[in-house]
Amino acid sequence: MSTADDSHDTADAPEAYHDLLERSEKLSNVHMASMALGWDQRVMMPEGGTPARAGQLSTLSGLSHDLLVDDDVGAWLDELESAELTGEQAAVVRELRRQYDRAADIPAELVERVASHQVETQQVWQEAKAEDDFAHFAPNLEELIDLHRERAAAIEPDANPYRVLYEDRLPYLPLESVEGIFDELREGLVPLIEEIKTEGRELPSVFRGHTYDEDDQMALSQEVVDLLGYPEEHGRLDTAPHPFMSGNQFDARITTRFREHDPTDALMATIHEFGHATYQLGLPKGEYGNPLGESLSSGVHESQSRFWENHVGRTKPFWEFFLPTMKEHFPHLEDVTVDEAYAAVNRIYPENLIRVEADELTYHLHIILRCEIDRAFVEGDLDVSEIPRVWNEKMDDYLGVVPETDTDGCLQDTHWSASFAAFQGYTVGSVLAAQLDAAIRDDLDVDGLVREGEFEPIWEWMTEHVHRYGQRYPTEELIEVATGEPLTADYFLDYVEAKYGELYELDGY
Amino acid sequence: MSTADDSHDTADAPEAYHDLLERSEKLSNVHMASMALGWDQRVMMPEGGTPARAGQLSTLSGLSHDLLVDDDVGAWLDELESAELTGEQAAVVRELRRQYDRAADIPAELVERVASHQVETQQVWQEAKAEDDFAHFAPNLEELIDLHRERAAAIEPDANPYRVLYEDRLPYLPLESVEGIFDELREGLVPLIEEIKTEGRELPSVFRGHTYDEDDQMALSQEVVDLLGYPEEHGRLDTAPHPFMSGNQFDARITTRFREHDPTDALMATIHEFGHATYQLGLPKGEYGNPLGESLSSGVHESQSRFWENHVGRTKPFWEFFLPTMKEHFPHLEDVTVDEAYAAVNRIYPENLIRVEADELTYHLHIILRCEIDRAFVEGDLDVSEIPRVWNEKMDDYLGVVPETDTDGCLQDTHWSASFAAFQGYTVGSVLAAQLDAAIRDDLDVDGLVREGEFEPIWEWMTEHVHRYGQRYPTEELIEVATGEPLTADYFLDYVEAKYGELYELDGY
Repeated sequence: MSTADDSHDTADAPEAYHDLLERSEKLSNVHMASMALGWDQRVMMPEGGTPARAGQLSTLSGLSHDLLVDDDVGAWLDELESAELTGEQAAVVRELRRQYDRAADIPAELVERVASHQVETQQVWQEAKAEDDFAHFAPNLEELIDLHRERAAAIEPDANPYRVLYEDRLPYLPLESVEGIFDELREGLVPLIEEIKTEGRELPSVFRGHTYDEDDQMALSQEVVDLLGYPEEHGRLDTAPHPFMSGNQFDARITTRFREHDPTDALMATIHEFGHATYQLGLPKGEYGNPLGESLSSGVHESQSRFWENHVGRTKPFWEFFLPTMKEHFPHLEDVTVDEAYAAVNRIYPENLIRVEADELTYHLHIILRCEIDRAFVEGDLDVSEIPRVWNEKMDDYLGVVPETDTDGCLQDTHWSASFAAFQGYTVGSVLAAQLDAAIRDDLDVDGLVREGEFEPIWEWMTEHVHRYGQRYPTEELIEVATGEPLTADYFLDYVEAKYGELYELDGY
Repeated sequence: MSTADDSHDTADAPEAYHDLLERSEKLSNVHMASMALGWDQRVMMPEGGTPARAGQLSTLSGLSHDLLVDDDVGAWLDELESAELTGEQAAVVRELRRQYDRAADIPAELVERVASHQVETQQVWQEAKAEDDFAHFAPNLEELIDLHRERAAAIEPDANPYRVLYEDRLPYLPLESVEGIFDELREGLVPLIEEIKTEGRELPSVFRGHTYDEDDQMALSQEVVDLLGYPEEHGRLDTAPHPFMSGNQFDARITTRFREHDPTDALMATIHEFGHATYQLGLPKGEYGNPLGESLSSGVHESQSRFWENHVGRTKPFWEFFLPTMKEHFPHLEDVTVDEAYAAVNRIYPENLIRVEADELTYHLHIILRCEIDRAFVEGDLDVSEIPRVWNEKMDDYLGVVPETDTDGCLQDTHWSASFAAFQGYTVGSVLAAQLDAAIRDDLDVDGLVREGEFEPIWEWMTEHVHRYGQRYPTEELIEVATGEPLTADYFLDYVEAKYGELYELDGY
């Protein structure tokens, strides 16, 4: 793969760099194999396959650890850190150093235990969610927390385990900065949502009040990704209980799921996952197998899904373009206007219980709630058995609603069956999406392109400014490279205040 | 996994045995991961995913090689070969010794080149077959032959490379014995087919003359495996250009494909692959990860698929049971009788060009042709570019037909894009299936059970006599354990002569 046209220059690199690249390629291949097996497990695998799949993923995880934490790798890194390297080469060394340091102190058997336990916990979570039985899930979750705490302690013995786990996903965006941005958001969003609840006009729900067949919804989801430019030869669309994207620059697959009374729910989930796929597919093919061909932190990934979902899919120009297609699929919608459709997909639902169905505003309160609970049980301040109670109390405090079942409450997300401190990236993604939206509008007439269904220049702009860099820059730097300034909550707050002020006809917004 | 109820006793085994088992588990997991990725590649993967998947499989293949060919493994084997072991333990040691010896002299980079090239060749074969363009395939095939010759020479430098490759798949059944059985078959089958062509009555083709929708055929295939007892929680049925089974005792998946003018073609392919799945699913779950939980040679595997396809699916009792279901799916068949259906699925087609669509008799001439060509180009007596010409000549000599395209000729099978000397097992499978059929009929009223749709006792008998042993016995021994005598062509010849003599109303049969 390293001979492809878009691979970086390695001609004058030291021999240790070539050794490191070769090792990186093996590591990437094992990681991508595990991802593909994970996709299969969630989308295709018969239920009884779990024990064998758990063994496979656990073995691959152990092998990956052995390949990374090896005296040779340590020696290559030491040598290369004092060698003269290009910017790209230095980025590869930086990222492998980070992986190496994080892994070096973790025993392979712990890595295998975590991987194996995650597979089981995922299965148990599915059962518990189906049966609304948190007690069935709790022992597995508790053991997983212990395993992750053990992992955090192995990485940095005296550090706060929560910060250590947070840095798994957002290594170059300090937790303190993110919490600062969260404060600004809370200050801006709480009064805006309150204003909408008390002063906002009633928005139409033109898509509800009808039952939508799953096959028809799947056809609509397939059509929307075809129109957006999702290439059939590099991806596929399936269903899974929790929508996700999985893959690489050659094969980036997405899933969606359906709500029978509102087809825009699946539609927006599909566009969201398509956004994740644009990032994978925009990574340089010639860099497959090293950090320059891999996506950056979760926050940047989420900026791409949120950009396509909110700054394309929830705009009025998109509905000018897409509403006729929607009517072809669902003829009973023939009298719906663009304004009605636009309002319907942007309605705020403070009473909604489900994060992945939440609107652009209340979404971030769902995230804040999770980060607080998450931090509390990782830091040992909250017993696992207390999660349902605390969840429901916080839902009441922040959004004024209490879920009637844990299926709609603390069991709703798959995340806790895999990892912790993993939610911050979602809100960072929305904030960054708004900042990128402001930047792209300096260069392109986004509204005009969307209205015409011309999505390619938009995807190309994102590839040019974000995707093609892979892990060339740390997150904070990439944000400056792509938008010209550091991450700020300002664009997101300006955007939602303008949009929802107008939509709900609020005074002073 | 080793704590499951059906795992063998290891309490008193030497420490080296536990080390060996642990290594075996890793090897199995990497192998099963590769199998799952191979299934995905053939059934689900978008075409553009090939470069990344090739890299993944190549890396896993290299890691597998490193895990096997390791000084520790050699030392454990040496120690265990002079230790006191149970029969099960000795079988595990024997199989790992065989794998170790075969792999020890092959450099990891050659293993990786073979794996990577196989993935590419598979892709190129699909294109060449679609476009009837052997020349597009030839350079890849030639390189693959060179790689396999290089591999054979590494295993046994001065041996005939063909025999060395043959022993990849049928290690405990000498090539000479198999060729002896092939001679007996040729002597029996050629006059029988000739007699049918010249003296046999015309059999009805009651299923032809109608176009069968693919979705309807898929529903029929799904129903037949449901009736046979294929468990939804441990398998799935999909489509692929060339039907195959892939998996393990927890997750054994099958594929089929459709011919629009004859639904029994897909039906029999589905039952065939179901037969393969019974073997995987009958392996002891507690032995997942070691040779006692793995299937034996290709010949034994094929005996299971052929048993279900021919000795169940092509019997008159099966059609007494199944014809009403067939009529529910295809109402235009309402007047078809059991005798007509039975005759239609047993019609001999000497003019057929396609191995996987061949009948029970001509099938083995397709195999003999391949073994001859295969042997000639591996031994260097036949240039790759000559394959289409030689193929067509031999088809003319043996079956009196010449394919008009290479798509229907030498490009029809996927096998040459993966390996060579791989065909003998198919005919061995039919021979062994007939021998097992004779044995099971000593214990069970197979016809009565099949007529009632009671397939479970049949599957259980096969599990009891074949599946549960895994690799406990070498092939020759297992055949004696299961049937009470060595492999012989007699049962197969008796069976086909009686069956086809009656069907075609031949004198003297």
